[in-house]
Amino acid sequence: MEADRRTRLAPDERRAQLVALGVAYLVDKPLESLTIEYLSAQAGVSRGLLFHYFGSKKGLHGEIARTARDSMLNATAPSAELAPLDRLRDTLSRIVQFVRDHRGTFYSLVRGASSGAVDVREALEQARAVQADRLIAVFRELGTADSELLRIALRSWVAFAEEALVESALDTDMTSEQIVSFLERTARAVVASVDQGRG
Amino acid sequence: MEADRRTRLAPDERRAQLVALGVAYLVDKPLESLTIEYLSAQAGVSRGLLFHYFGSKKGLHGEIARTARDSMLNATAPSAELAPLDRLRDTLSRIVQFVRDHRGTFYSLVRGASSGAVDVREALEQARAVQADRLIAVFRELGTADSELLRIALRSWVAFAEEALVESALDTDMTSEQIVSFLERTARAVVASVDQGRG
Repeated sequence: MEADRRTRLAPDERRAQLVALGVAYLVDKPLESLTIEYLSAQAGVSRGLLFHYFGSKKGLHGEIARTARDSMLNATAPSAELAPLDRLRDTLSRIVQFVRDHRGTFYSLVRGASSGAVDVREALEQARAVQADRLIAVFRELGTADSELLRIALRSWVAFAEEALVESALDTDMTSEQIVSFLERTARAVVASVDQGRG
Repeated sequence: MEADRRTRLAPDERRAQLVALGVAYLVDKPLESLTIEYLSAQAGVSRGLLFHYFGSKKGLHGEIARTARDSMLNATAPSAELAPLDRLRDTLSRIVQFVRDHRGTFYSLVRGASSGAVDVREALEQARAVQADRLIAVFRELGTADSELLRIALRSWVAFAEEALVESALDTDMTSEQIVSFLERTARAVVASVDQGRG
């Protein structure tokens, strides 16, 4: 094993490996508890190399959070060929799947934003903004008029969905179909509530 | 002014005054930036006295967050004499009013939970749990069956409402009536989404 650990990697590969080890750490432990010392021991590289790549523990945490964010956003990217409602369901299904497959990653991203690390908060804010934009695109294609309140409603619904996903997908034995269906109904209901305000 | 500052207060009064100064600080600055040094200078008391009362900066922040939490929960306590839907509207009205009157306090509580301070996070979690319980009581009185999903839905709706309140009450010129009406519609729509899942 020692030999494996010391395998020479190109700098980019080494860096990516360190970040991947950091994301793997999130499976059962919170990001804020990850230290440079622990990761350097895990990877069999010097602390100095980690400081060289990431500057500081904060830098490392930020990089891990951004990688976790991209991993979630890629795993849940909308299938452009689907009609809007099918695309919504498909995206929601893949989010539930992602949360169940990578519970620690999702939990760390959603809850890790409370770690006080600015980079982690920003990564979550960006993920939320992307998910909200995807939803806005679906509902606009369905004929909903764009408005300030629609955008507030869908950004707020993303916060709703994060809570509901953490609780339902991680802490209950609800089926994925039940969760997807619930999320779809609530997203549509929240958008309908925006429209009713115009009446 | 110096004379005023040095007015002798009983220890409980002095402590309460320090916490109140801390809550006032939230009007335009985030909790995590509040230092023992700043508050001791503001109050005209020694740093040692602050450490004596609060133990540490974390202890001080926790106490301020709990006071802000209680202040919000008291300001928005349900009027028991009202019928459930009137009580919901009345509570929502008072929440919107509270957010607009004490924007910094609400913002610090909701966003300050990202400061990494465990005490602040706990204060927010407790506030959410109380608000969710108030909502559950309203809908149960309206005849909604209790269920795991109802509780998940309403706890998640509290996160939705926090986001929507921060954005709509602080960043738009929506009237309070419009915000209250939107929040009421979304709460009822989310609960209806729970029921539809049983069909």
